[in-house]
Amino acid sequence: MRNLLMTVSYDGTNYFGFQTQPGGNTVQDHIEGAIRQLTGETVKIHGSGRTDAGVHARQQPFHFHTDSRIPVERWCLALNARLPSDIRVLTAREVPLTFHSRHSAKRKTYRYTINTNRFPDVFQRNYQFHHPGQLNVDAMQASLPYLVGTHDFTSFASRQSTKLSHVRTIYDARIVVDSLAKIPGTTGQGIVHFYVTGSGFLQHMVRIIVGTLIEIGEGKRTPESIQAILEAKDRTAAGPTAESKGLMLWSVEYEEEDLCD
Amino acid sequence: MRNLLMTVSYDGTNYFGFQTQPGGNTVQDHIEGAIRQLTGETVKIHGSGRTDAGVHARQQPFHFHTDSRIPVERWCLALNARLPSDIRVLTAREVPLTFHSRHSAKRKTYRYTINTNRFPDVFQRNYQFHHPGQLNVDAMQASLPYLVGTHDFTSFASRQSTKLSHVRTIYDARIVVDSLAKIPGTTGQGIVHFYVTGSGFLQHMVRIIVGTLIEIGEGKRTPESIQAILEAKDRTAAGPTAESKGLMLWSVEYEEEDLCD
Repeated sequence: MRNLLMTVSYDGTNYFGFQTQPGGNTVQDHIEGAIRQLTGETVKIHGSGRTDAGVHARQQPFHFHTDSRIPVERWCLALNARLPSDIRVLTAREVPLTFHSRHSAKRKTYRYTINTNRFPDVFQRNYQFHHPGQLNVDAMQASLPYLVGTHDFTSFASRQSTKLSHVRTIYDARIVVDSLAKIPGTTGQGIVHFYVTGSGFLQHMVRIIVGTLIEIGEGKRTPESIQAILEAKDRTAAGPTAESKGLMLWSVEYEEEDLCD
Repeated sequence: MRNLLMTVSYDGTNYFGFQTQPGGNTVQDHIEGAIRQLTGETVKIHGSGRTDAGVHARQQPFHFHTDSRIPVERWCLALNARLPSDIRVLTAREVPLTFHSRHSAKRKTYRYTINTNRFPDVFQRNYQFHHPGQLNVDAMQASLPYLVGTHDFTSFASRQSTKLSHVRTIYDARIVVDSLAKIPGTTGQGIVHFYVTGSGFLQHMVRIIVGTLIEIGEGKRTPESIQAILEAKDRTAAGPTAESKGLMLWSVEYEEEDLCD
């Protein structure tokens, strides 16, 4: 028995999220199907977390136990040959049997991308939330220190959340404006990327933070209002849930000692 | 009667190129349909040139004559509301009746993108030619001076070309390596962009140049061989036609005096 840790990149546009669910057509279903085709084994893979329908992953870890003796360096090419072109396994390594891609995760980073230009970028249309018009990025930046730290994020979680505790730690939150995406003759402020790194995230948490930051950028709320929203511990205190297609799981980090025997 | 010049961005993945053809489903067909829905007029639009099936445009100009009195600043939004999400009209302006988007074009720039990483980027999978493995970019760079200038490009044109003259001028050719696209733990040299600006391009010309540059990058040909290929005036002297999805019409330039009365 071996424990294999892999990372996968996927365009979530055509999937109902990562994790298997009754409706089918999830990234997990496709990866388990590819493993079955390759090894004959029916395995259950464990992702570092769920993603909602339409959310993307630049690099999402998953692990599974296998009796297959296929050398670790052969897996990526072999699985990719059996996966649709919007899912690609990028890395594979053997890890201790005690390693778990979700339980062992120490830090997760998400990126959310807002296109503020007048028109969508056709090449990024499935990966950006198109929100034309000027945003006060300075006000959005000024909001970030209120989010960083350990807080009860009930106000920023879906009411469907089943977690016992809504306390999470945000280590870092950054906004990067990329104006290079502008095409001559077109108008708009460019592309606004929001990066957030934390111990873990509740259902819809990044998207509700972004929906709230956009309202701050529009002048409908103040940066300081984040504090009152957190204290309210009430979903209705925060802004709307920004649409899923702008969200991408950027990376998940582990302790090196958990990865090695 | 007014003459309107617009620019359009499109993801060419699902189209049989820009220009109307018997099989239908071209970018031109969709734009003419949107104009008909908006104004009731059946017009013929004139693009700055053709693009092959699967080729993209960041910004392609087209013009058409119309009796519509819709103000010029309203056209983009109005057409985009009637176009599929992979086609977006970005700019619109009125130009003299003598202006022609193809005849008046002075310089055209194309970009061709090669992904040399081990695995495709799922988010760019329709916009990059995936060619894993090391390319000698220095050798490719050293080839470019042989292409720049006025030459008979018969060797770099499709045998189907019906043009009377295959003499064209290349003003500028550049290679830009973007290594930022790499994901931790994955391997590869990164993304290689080839930009080429010229007076005009023959059918498949950029793709045959790229197919030849890749063979130079692989060590199968020398940079100096470009000279002999040009002198041969024979398609078989050059390399293969690189696949269409890596190609993007980047920009088309006009003289300011042709744009204004």
